[in-house]
Amino acid sequence: MQLHLSTWTEVEAYLKKSQGIILPIGSTEQHSPIGLIGTDAICAEAIARGVGEATQALIGPTINVGMALHHTAFPGTISLRPSTMIQVVRDYITCLAKAGFSKFYFINGHGGNIATLKAAFSEIYAHLEDLQISNAPQVQCQVANWFMCSSVYKLAKELYGDQEGSHATPSEVALTQYIYPEAIKQAPLSSEVASGHRIYGATDFRRRYPDGRMGSNPALATPEHGKQFYDLAVKELSNGYLEFVNGDVSG
Amino acid sequence: MQLHLSTWTEVEAYLKKSQGIILPIGSTEQHSPIGLIGTDAICAEAIARGVGEATQALIGPTINVGMALHHTAFPGTISLRPSTMIQVVRDYITCLAKAGFSKFYFINGHGGNIATLKAAFSEIYAHLEDLQISNAPQVQCQVANWFMCSSVYKLAKELYGDQEGSHATPSEVALTQYIYPEAIKQAPLSSEVASGHRIYGATDFRRRYPDGRMGSNPALATPEHGKQFYDLAVKELSNGYLEFVNGDVSG
Amino acid sequence: MQLHLSTWTEVEAYLKKSQGIILPIGSTEQHSPIGLIGTDAICAEAIARGVGEATQALIGPTINVGMALHHTAFPGTISLRPSTMIQVVRDYITCLAKAGFSKFYFINGHGGNIATLKAAFSEIYAHLEDLQISNAPQVQCQVANWFMCSSVYKLAKELYGDQEGSHATPSEVALTQYIYPEAIKQAPLSSEVASGHRIYGATDFRRRYPDGRMGSNPALATPEHGKQFYDLAVKELSNGYLEFVNGDVSG
Amino acid sequence: MQLHLSTWTEVEAYLKKSQGIILPIGSTEQHSPIGLIGTDAICAEAIARGVGEATQALIGPTINVGMALHHTAFPGTISLRPSTMIQVVRDYITCLAKAGFSKFYFINGHGGNIATLKAAFSEIYAHLEDLQISNAPQVQCQVANWFMCSSVYKLAKELYGDQEGSHATPSEVALTQYIYPEAIKQAPLSSEVASGHRIYGATDFRRRYPDGRMGSNPALATPEHGKQFYDLAVKELSNGYLEFVNGDVSG
Amino acid sequence: MQLHLSTWTEVEAYLKKSQGIILPIGSTEQHSPIGLIGTDAICAEAIARGVGEATQALIGPTINVGMALHHTAFPGTISLRPSTMIQVVRDYITCLAKAGFSKFYFINGHGGNIATLKAAFSEIYAHLEDLQISNAPQVQCQVANWFMCSSVYKLAKELYGDQEGSHATPSEVALTQYIYPEAIKQAPLSSEVASGHRIYGATDFRRRYPDGRMGSNPALATPEHGKQFYDLAVKELSNGYLEFVNGDVSG
Amino acid sequence: MQLHLSTWTEVEAYLKKSQGIILPIGSTEQHSPIGLIGTDAICAEAIARGVGEATQALIGPTINVGMALHHTAFPGTISLRPSTMIQVVRDYITCLAKAGFSKFYFINGHGGNIATLKAAFSEIYAHLEDLQISNAPQVQCQVANWFMCSSVYKLAKELYGDQEGSHATPSEVALTQYIYPEAIKQAPLSSEVASGHRIYGATDFRRRYPDGRMGSNPALATPEHGKQFYDLAVKELSNGYLEFVNGDVSG
Repeated sequence: MQLHLSTWTEVEAYLKKSQGIILPIGSTEQHSPIGLIGTDAICAEAIARGVGEATQALIGPTINVGMALHHTAFPGTISLRPSTMIQVVRDYITCLAKAGFSKFYFINGHGGNIATLKAAFSEIYAHLEDLQISNAPQVQCQVANWFMCSSVYKLAKELYGDQEGSHATPSEVALTQYIYPEAIKQAPLSSEVASGHRIYGATDFRRRYPDGRMGSNPALATPEHGKQFYDLAVKELSNGYLEFVNGDVSG
Repeated sequence: MQLHLSTWTEVEAYLKKSQGIILPIGSTEQHSPIGLIGTDAICAEAIARGVGEATQALIGPTINVGMALHHTAFPGTISLRPSTMIQVVRDYITCLAKAGFSKFYFINGHGGNIATLKAAFSEIYAHLEDLQISNAPQVQCQVANWFMCSSVYKLAKELYGDQEGSHATPSEVALTQYIYPEAIKQAPLSSEVASGHRIYGATDFRRRYPDGRMGSNPALATPEHGKQFYDLAVKELSNGYLEFVNGDVSG
Repeated sequence: MQLHLSTWTEVEAYLKKSQGIILPIGSTEQHSPIGLIGTDAICAEAIARGVGEATQALIGPTINVGMALHHTAFPGTISLRPSTMIQVVRDYITCLAKAGFSKFYFINGHGGNIATLKAAFSEIYAHLEDLQISNAPQVQCQVANWFMCSSVYKLAKELYGDQEGSHATPSEVALTQYIYPEAIKQAPLSSEVASGHRIYGATDFRRRYPDGRMGSNPALATPEHGKQFYDLAVKELSNGYLEFVNGDVSG
Repeated sequence: MQLHLSTWTEVEAYLKKSQGIILPIGSTEQHSPIGLIGTDAICAEAIARGVGEATQALIGPTINVGMALHHTAFPGTISLRPSTMIQVVRDYITCLAKAGFSKFYFINGHGGNIATLKAAFSEIYAHLEDLQISNAPQVQCQVANWFMCSSVYKLAKELYGDQEGSHATPSEVALTQYIYPEAIKQAPLSSEVASGHRIYGATDFRRRYPDGRMGSNPALATPEHGKQFYDLAVKELSNGYLEFVNGDVSG
Repeated sequence: MQLHLSTWTEVEAYLKKSQGIILPIGSTEQHSPIGLIGTDAICAEAIARGVGEATQALIGPTINVGMALHHTAFPGTISLRPSTMIQVVRDYITCLAKAGFSKFYFINGHGGNIATLKAAFSEIYAHLEDLQISNAPQVQCQVANWFMCSSVYKLAKELYGDQEGSHATPSEVALTQYIYPEAIKQAPLSSEVASGHRIYGATDFRRRYPDGRMGSNPALATPEHGKQFYDLAVKELSNGYLEFVNGDVSG
Repeated sequence: MQLHLSTWTEVEAYLKKSQGIILPIGSTEQHSPIGLIGTDAICAEAIARGVGEATQALIGPTINVGMALHHTAFPGTISLRPSTMIQVVRDYITCLAKAGFSKFYFINGHGGNIATLKAAFSEIYAHLEDLQISNAPQVQCQVANWFMCSSVYKLAKELYGDQEGSHATPSEVALTQYIYPEAIKQAPLSSEVASGHRIYGATDFRRRYPDGRMGSNPALATPEHGKQFYDLAVKELSNGYLEFVNGDVSG
C-alpha cells in the first residue's frame, strides 16, 4: 500500500491495524559516468515497494535527496545539509506520529544518510516528548540499509569480488538496470580506480576520486544481477520490517 | 532528460547548452476520500516530465512533500514547516547553482506551496550573493502552477463548472486517474460540500471541511479528462519554460 | 485605540469585548529618488490608525522593516530575511495569542511582504497548536493590502493610468505626501522608465530598474490625491476588518 | 535626517560624509496601569530624533518590539525571543553595512534589550567578517541607554528619590507625557509597591510585581519633567554619538 | 559534590534536599603571551569546586568554551557564537529542570559571557513555560562573576593598581598559577600596553591590542596572590550561592 | 601540550610545525548506580592527554556534554540536541581552521556522539568551503572511539566476557577508577540486567533499562584494569593520530 496512491480514509483504516510505515530514502548524487544520479533513491524506492507488497506495510513518499555534500563537486548532485535533513525528518515524523503512526522504518539506499538519520531520530524522540504527543514514548525509528543486507553483501562479493568497491558499486547499478532497463548507460572507465581514501569535503573527494567511483567497477552490472539483488533485499528487509513492527514493545 | 536517470557526465554536457532545470514540487496531503494523497506530486511530476520531453529540459527530483500544515488533521498528510522548506529549497538551489545552473523552474501542483516558495526564492538570491558564487546575479527562480494555466482553468470550468471547487478538484483527480488508472478510487461523497471558508490552522480546516473537499466534486473526474488536462498543461508550461529560460537576461 | 498609547489594564479591558488586533506592516526600502524610504510603513501605519478610529480596533506597533531583499542594492534599504521575518511574526502572535487575542489583521503596505507573511501564518498556526494554547484553534491571521483595495486601484488607474506602475507608484507617494507634507521631494526623473521585468535578486533588480522605479511616475503624486487614497483605503479596510473579526467562527 | 522620510539618493549623498546611523530601540511592554505600553519605544524614538537634529545624524526606523519576555504575563506585551532579536539586528546591520554604514549607535529605551543587543553585536562582527564585506573590520556598534545618562539619573533622583524605582519609572512616564500629552493616564495605584526582586520568568515576574511597577511611583510624572529629561538626554547622547562617530578608528 | 564524579542515584538523593546546581563557565581564549588560554575556565572551575565544598552544592560540568569571538584573531581561541551558546545553555537547563533542578548558579570567569548568558536565561524561562514543565515558574538562573566580587576587586586594586587592567589581568593569571603552578609562563612583555578601547570585532581587537593584553601587566601575578584571590572568591560566592538558593521564592 | 595550559604565542609556534589538534569529547550521563556521570568525558580526556604526551599533539578543551538524549530520564544527565551539537562543533572547527588548524582528531568516549559528530563533519566541510577559508579543502575530521580500539575490546572480552555489556561497562568504569580512585562507588546491583533492546527515546530507555545498565556488570571493574585499558587505548590512538595527521594529503 503506497501512501501517495491512497486516500486519507484508507490511511485511517490502515492505522486501526498497524502503526508502522516504511519511508524510502535515497540521494541525488553522482554515481560515476555509468551509474545514475538517482541510484540510491531508485533502489530504496523499488525495494521499499517490494517490501510493502510482501508485508502489507504502508510505504511513504521517497525522500529522494539526502546527505551527499561530499559529492557536490560533481554536477547534478543535490544535497541537504545535515541540519536541514534533521528538520525534514522531524517534520515528517511529527506529522505522522500525531496521526497515530509509531513505527518508522527507513529503507535507505545511501551510506551518507545514516549518521544524519540517527542524529535526527534522537532529536525527534525528545521533540515528540516535548510536544506531549500521547504516543511519543512508543515512537521508534529504524534505518535499514538494503546494501548492507547480509544476503546482498554475500552475492555482491560472489559476483564482483573486490570490484564491488564502496560507491557506484556494480550491485546498486545492477539494481537500477533491473528497474530502469531503458536507462542503462555505457561509458569508458579507466581500468585504474581510486580506493581507500576516507571521505572529507567535496573538493577533496573529487580530487581523490576523479570519476566518482570508489574502488568499484560498475561496468560489471547486469539487469539480471539486479533482479537477484532486488529479490534478496526485499526478502531480508521484509523480515526486518516485520520483526521491527511486531517487536515486543515491553522489551 | 531526467536527472535521476542521468549520469554526472551527462549533466556536465547538458550544462554546456543550458543552465535551466525544472523542479517538480507537490505535496503529500489528503485529497478527500476519493483523491490520492500524492495527487499534487503525481500531477507535478507527470507534467514536468512531459515538459521535459517537449523542451529537452532537465527534470530534477520531485519534491513530493510540501507545505500542507493545514491538512495535517487528516491522517496520511505530511508537511514541511515553511521554515524547513525554505532551507530545503535553499540547499537544492545552492548545490545546483554552484554546478552552473541558473534558471530554476518549479512546476508546482499545490497552492499551499506558493507563498513559501516565493519567500524561499528571496532568501536564496541573497544567500547566493553572500556566498559570492560567480553566477549568483544570474540566478532566477520561477514557480509555475499547472492548475492555474489558463487552458487548464478554462477546461475545468467547461467540464465541471462550480463543482471544480478549490481542493480535491475533479481536474487534479482526473489527471491522477490518467497517470495511475490502477488507483482510481470510489467512495460515497455527501452531495453537500463545504466551500468559501478561508484557510487557517489544521484543526479549524478539518472542522470546516470535514471530508477534506473544498467545494469540489471529484467524483466527476475521468481518466479521459485527465489526458486532456495533461496535454494542455504540458503545452502551456512548455511555452512558459522556454520563455523563462530564453528570457533576455539583460532585461 | 493604539497599543503603544495604552496601558496593560486598558488592553485587559479591551480583550473582554474583542479578540481582534490590527498590525500595520510596511518596509524600509528605496522608492525611487522621489519616494520616501519609509513609504510602505508610513502608509500602512496611517491607514491602520484610520481603521482603528473607524472600528474601535486596537492597533499594534508598526512592523516597519519587512521583506525587501530585492531592494538592498539601493542604500538605505533594510530588510529582514524571510526566515527571520517568520520568527518575528511568530513571536508577536505567540505573545498576543497567549494574552487572549485570536484575530490578527495585518494591514500591509508592501507587496514583498505577502508571501513571507502567508508562510509565517501557516507556521504559526501549527506552532500554537503545538504549544497547546487554549485558543489556538481560533487563531486567524489575515493580510490586507491597502494598495490592492478595489477602490484604491480604481482611483489610481483613473488618475495615473499606466504611469501608476508597480513600485514607487504615484498613489503610495501621494499618500505619504498627505501624511508628511513637510517631506515632499523633488528630483529629476528620466522620462523613460523600465517596466515589466520580474523580480529576482538585488543586483539584478538594480540593473533592470536603475533608479528604483518600476514603470511608475511618482512625480504625478499630490497630497490631495493622497487624502483621497487614504479615505478610500480606510473605508474599505474598515469593512474588511469588521467582516474578519465578526466572521462566523463556526463557518 | 530620518531614514523613513528620506530617499535613497539622499542616503547615498549622506554616506559620502558620514557612515554613522542611529537606531532607536524600545519595547512594547506593560508599564504599570499608568505607563504606556509603548513607553520605551516612544522615549527612544523621540530622543533619537532630537539627537539627529542636533548632530545631523541619520535616524533609522525604530525597533519598537524588543526583548520583554519577562513582561509577557501582562496583556499587551509583545516580545522577541533573544535568538530572534539577534537575527533581526543582524539583518539590519548586514543591509546597512553592505551599503557603506559602519557606525551603529543604538539609542535604547529598555534595560531588557541590553544583553541581547550586546550578544547580537558580537555575532554580527563575526558574520560580517565571514561575508568578507570590505568595511567589516570598521563596523562598530554601541548601545546608549538614555535612562542611564548621568544627567538623567541625577534629575530623576532629585525629583523622585527612591520613588524612581526601576520599571515604569516616573522619569520615563514623564517623557512620554511630554511627547504625547493627549495620552496621559490616571489610575489608582496602591501605595505599597514591590521592589528588590530579581527578574526571572514571566509568571514569576507578575506574581512578584502584580501591577507591573518595580518600586516606582509613576504618578509623580509630569509633562514638564518630561521635557527636562528629554533635553538632558538629547544633549548627553548627542555628545555620545559625536564621540562615537568621530572616534579615532586607529585607536 | 561534583556531578561528573557522582552517580545518578546520588543525584536523585541530592535532589530531595536541594534543587540548586552550580555551573562553572569560562572561555578558551588568548590571555596575552603570559596568561593561559584556559584561564577563564580554570578559574571558574576551581572556584566553583571550592564553593561546592563550602556549601555542599552540586557542581556541574564546566562550560569551557564561551563567547570569545573578539579574541578569535589570536590562534588557540575557540568561541561559540552567541546564538549557539543560547542553544547550549537552553539544552543544559532543560535537561536539568526536567530532572527537578530549579536554581542555576553560573560561576563565570569571562566578562564576554555575561550578555549572552543573560539573553539565554530570558529565552530559557519562556521555553520552559512553553514546555509546561511543572517547575518552570520556579526556575531561576543567576550569573556570578568571580572577578567582580568586591573582595577580589579590592585586593586586585591593592596589589596591582592600574596594572590590573581588564583582560589577561594579573589577578586571574595569579589564580591560574595557584591552581597550575606547573604551567607558569614567562615571556617578554612590552612596557607599553594598550588600554581604553572598546571591544568590537576580532580584527579590530587584535589591531588595537596587539599582544592581547588590555591595560594589564600579568607579569605581576604570583601563585601566592592566586591563593588569596581563590579564598576571597570562594568565600564571597559561597555566600552568594546560599543566598540565591535559599532565597524566599515568594519574594 | 594542552591548549588550556598554553598561551597564544605557544599555539602560534605549534602551528608552524603541526596543523593537528585532538579534541576529547565525552558525555554527562547516567552510567548505572556505580558508574560516574562524567565517565565518558573523564575517559576521553585522560586518554587524549596520554596521546598528547606520546605524540606532542595539542589537546583542546574537553567537550564534556554530548548527545545523550536517551539517558535524560535519569537525573544528572545533560545532553545537547544533535542540532545544537552540530552548531557547537561547527563553531569550534571554524575558529581553529581560521587559525590554521586542519586536522581534527576527536577522541570520543560515548557511542551516542558518533552519528551527530559525523553529521557535523559533513556540514562543516561545506561551511568552510562556503566561507572560502584558504585551507578549507585540507580540513579533515576524524572520530576515534577509545572503547572501540581493538586492543581495548580484546581485553574487555578477556576480563569480563558477556558482562562487558554496552553501557556502564566495566571497562569504562575501570578507567575512571584508575583516574579518580577517590571516586570509586559501591552500590547493590541486581544480578539480572536488561540487554538487547535497541535505543529509542528517553522514557522508553529507562523503562527497558531501569538502573541504566545495558547488559553490563560494572562491579567487575578495578583501578588496575583501568590502567591496562588506559595504556592500550593511549598506544592505539597515538598510532591512529599519527597516521591521521601524517596521512598523504594528496591521497
